[in-house]
Amino acid sequence: MGRTSDAGKKILDAAQSLIELRGYSALGVADICKAAGVPKGSFYYFYASKEVLALAVLDEHWAAQKAAWSGVLGGDAEPLLRLRLLFEETQAGQQAGQQSCGTVAGCMFGNLSLEMSNQTEAIRARLQQIFEAQVDMVEAVVTEALARGEVTVADPREAARSVVAQLEGQVLFAKLYNSPQQLSPLWANCLALLGARAPQGAVAGG
Amino acid sequence: MGRTSDAGKKILDAAQSLIELRGYSALGVADICKAAGVPKGSFYYFYASKEVLALAVLDEHWAAQKAAWSGVLGGDAEPLLRLRLLFEETQAGQQAGQQSCGTVAGCMFGNLSLEMSNQTEAIRARLQQIFEAQVDMVEAVVTEALARGEVTVADPREAARSVVAQLEGQVLFAKLYNSPQQLSPLWANCLALLGARAPQGAVAGG
Repeated sequence: MGRTSDAGKKILDAAQSLIELRGYSALGVADICKAAGVPKGSFYYFYASKEVLALAVLDEHWAAQKAAWSGVLGGDAEPLLRLRLLFEETQAGQQAGQQSCGTVAGCMFGNLSLEMSNQTEAIRARLQQIFEAQVDMVEAVVTEALARGEVTVADPREAARSVVAQLEGQVLFAKLYNSPQQLSPLWANCLALLGARAPQGAVAGG
Repeated sequence: MGRTSDAGKKILDAAQSLIELRGYSALGVADICKAAGVPKGSFYYFYASKEVLALAVLDEHWAAQKAAWSGVLGGDAEPLLRLRLLFEETQAGQQAGQQSCGTVAGCMFGNLSLEMSNQTEAIRARLQQIFEAQVDMVEAVVTEALARGEVTVADPREAARSVVAQLEGQVLFAKLYNSPQQLSPLWANCLALLGARAPQGAVAGG
């Protein structure tokens, strides 16, 4: 059925764009359907509630970001250089978003954590899972670097969480100042948090 | 007039509580007046718009936080110990908030930066001023520590900004996990970001 395959996806895509631009609370089902170009009456055929739709948006957005992070963090480069590439890709992504819509959208997971995590337990739980998965992925790289003697952390998981916290904090500034360049210190900050030195042959910005 | 002195302050206080609990977008003028116990008709006698009220809430909240930060960061302790005290006070404040309302509210400035900074330029500008002032205060302490040879940063302002970003990132996790304990790594993270060692005589958690 065209209805199932198209309208549901249109609603999901419209909701993702609108949540990135305006957050969750400000959105009504009518706004989402209007942006999706589907009749309002069809919304509940696909989603039981706005919250169920938001969870689907989070899952879709994380599936894409997880694939991108896996590509970078599971690559063949030295572990610390993979972290640098993650920050460079993040900055490039925020830059591309700014060029297409005029403002830095920031991180949808960070945005919704601060907007919604104390208001709906379902969204809080999903966001916790996503951040745990991010920390898992960074921790795996930190553990590799530790085995190579390139970092000096006492607790790879806590160190990985601090690296993700630094990323979220700097993305907050990138959004606040509408400036992806706010992300430039991430690589040096990550090395500092991990008690590492820049790998030999790595040139800043190179 | 009782009306001027009381009702305006009641609206401001109610708005501050509601913004901490539910953010800005979800609030209507009617909700705020109901919580304040003032007739809706009187709102516009005091505030030209919800945005003007939000700016007043930001100013009021920052005036209180600035006084607290000044007390801690302008104190007599060694510079790095003042930063540690700032993190301890932040954690204690989030803990107290959690005990009184059941959930960690996080940082109002961070919350509104992610919720609103790409939507209203007036709120964005005010939040930028507040974060610049925070960075100023941390930078002054970092500069003192640098003069004493206790840190090894190349650029005290950028280092201060990274410390504030780390604070915001960890506060995001404290809100997401409803756990003020997420703030415990801040002191060690700050020392790492500043290329410092713990001052002599400083015992972790002491």
